[in-house]
Amino acid sequence: MATEHSAETASGATPKVCPHFHAAVELVGKRWSGAILSTLSERPCRFGELSHGVPGMSDRLLSQRLRELEAEGLVERKVEPGAPVRVSYSLTIKGADLDPALRELRVWGQRWKT
Amino acid sequence: MATEHSAETASGATPKVCPHFHAAVELVGKRWSGAILSTLSERPCRFGELSHGVPGMSDRLLSQRLRELEAEGLVERKVEPGAPVRVSYSLTIKGADLDPALRELRVWGQRWKT
Repeated sequence: MATEHSAETASGATPKVCPHFHAAVELVGKRWSGAILSTLSERPCRFGELSHGVPGMSDRLLSQRLRELEAEGLVERKVEPGAPVRVSYSLTIKGADLDPALRELRVWGQRWKT
Repeated sequence: MATEHSAETASGATPKVCPHFHAAVELVGKRWSGAILSTLSERPCRFGELSHGVPGMSDRLLSQRLRELEAEGLVERKVEPGAPVRVSYSLTIKGADLDPALRELRVWGQRWKT
């Protein structure tokens, strides 16, 4: 007997999730990453600005996420010469290319007031 | 002296993340949720089909995510009458309205091969 958890398939092949889509949504959706990317899509920011722009996120987690986003090639860390030394974060071309997706998510969030 | 972690702001107000966007990205980005929504955007699926469509996800976690997405009003659970009883999952209007965002993420994922 087929139950709710049966692996039986309906007519037609089971749709398979594209692994690149899956990786993308897991990357952007990782806790706080979307918020960081969205803030940086406005303009390059310094660490403190990001910390202010995304309330509720600890500095420790912000550091970690920035390192991850840098490693994924979405965020670029720039040391501005001078005294005092300043570090700013900006989106790479790959990161900025997420803008249409983030914009659609923003539209959806505002429409449905999640 | 300003350090990397200084809260000092640059010229202009710090961009603040829209709370609705933040909620949306955290919802869609929760582990496996994007993959489930993407699979259901193809057509309604039964539990076993979803389990096959999203390899690597345990049935326990799939059950949990489906309940969460149902509670958020993105997924509808329908019991099809008959013997054996069949349960299918489909997107609500709110869930289907995520399609443009998921499509953009798919385009991005395929372009950048994340």
